[in-house]
Amino acid sequence: MAGFEQDKPSGSQAVLDNIHSRKSVRSFTEEPVTPGQVEILLKAAMSAPSGKNQQPWRFVVVREQATRDKLAVGFNKMIAKAPVAIVVCGETKDKTGADNKNWTADCAAATENLLLAAEALGLGAVWTACYPYDERMNPAIEALGLPGDIKPYCIVPIGHPAGNDKPKDKWKPEYIHHEKW
Amino acid sequence: MAGFEQDKPSGSQAVLDNIHSRKSVRSFTEEPVTPGQVEILLKAAMSAPSGKNQQPWRFVVVREQATRDKLAVGFNKMIAKAPVAIVVCGETKDKTGADNKNWTADCAAATENLLLAAEALGLGAVWTACYPYDERMNPAIEALGLPGDIKPYCIVPIGHPAGNDKPKDKWKPEYIHHEKW
Repeated sequence: MAGFEQDKPSGSQAVLDNIHSRKSVRSFTEEPVTPGQVEILLKAAMSAPSGKNQQPWRFVVVREQATRDKLAVGFNKMIAKAPVAIVVCGETKDKTGADNKNWTADCAAATENLLLAAEALGLGAVWTACYPYDERMNPAIEALGLPGDIKPYCIVPIGHPAGNDKPKDKWKPEYIHHEKW
Repeated sequence: MAGFEQDKPSGSQAVLDNIHSRKSVRSFTEEPVTPGQVEILLKAAMSAPSGKNQQPWRFVVVREQATRDKLAVGFNKMIAKAPVAIVVCGETKDKTGADNKNWTADCAAATENLLLAAEALGLGAVWTACYPYDERMNPAIEALGLPGDIKPYCIVPIGHPAGNDKPKDKWKPEYIHHEKW
């Protein structure tokens, strides 16, 4: 890393530290998440890159216990215990009615932005996949009344971390190839 | 946003600013990208969330002009002009040999981390999709010699921004629903 420090912009270490400290948080305190915090998270999500700038992401913010109970179908039971869950959905058609082949990529990038912003705010969150599993998408479609072209991509329960969850070290230099496989 | 400022952790504004200042950079100066910078980007990428912690992401770092020329198949011609391109690939099978249905989501999250880390370092980058387009995946498979289970997800050319590219304001409150669609 010689030669690197001198052109590292101010603030970059905070960004990198936040990326590395983000973790999947599955248990939460009773402390609420404010509407202002949710707005910050959604602004971050909507700043993601988007293929052909189609911005297919849509969001349903769910606070009601009865609805969160319907979304918590088993593997994602922490949705029932978080103060708020954001359902990241995708408009699967483009403006001409054709399939938008980038909708999952764009929704994934938006979700990662949302998770990183949550970490930055001291909140905890976890990506629970809906797509491409019918048995996970269907309960969300029904609970939220999603229109036909809108698919639930994932559900992110959010709250204040109870403190049990830690980031994982996933660094594996053997996953890096140079020039060719 | 009342009640928010007092519990905003130090460094959070730098994180949010970086998310909002990330942009798709398609033109680059001649200045090289160092191996240390590439390592920082890949460490960020490998810190992404991963379904069942399978970490299906793999990376090919391409600097050679001849290989970048082969990867630049048209829409992504800036790959030929960037000092380095990182091809984000996915192991599409899990350890049992079954399809890993989360590989695209994990590769997308890793790519977004990589793009955000590039922005933090003052570098410029752009996500150019390969998956799910056969006509984009096949040239990368051939140029890099990817094994059968490994698919190229996207290619990210990286360099120092020439300064032409600006972030877009994509904030659309109308994309947010509350409790139900």
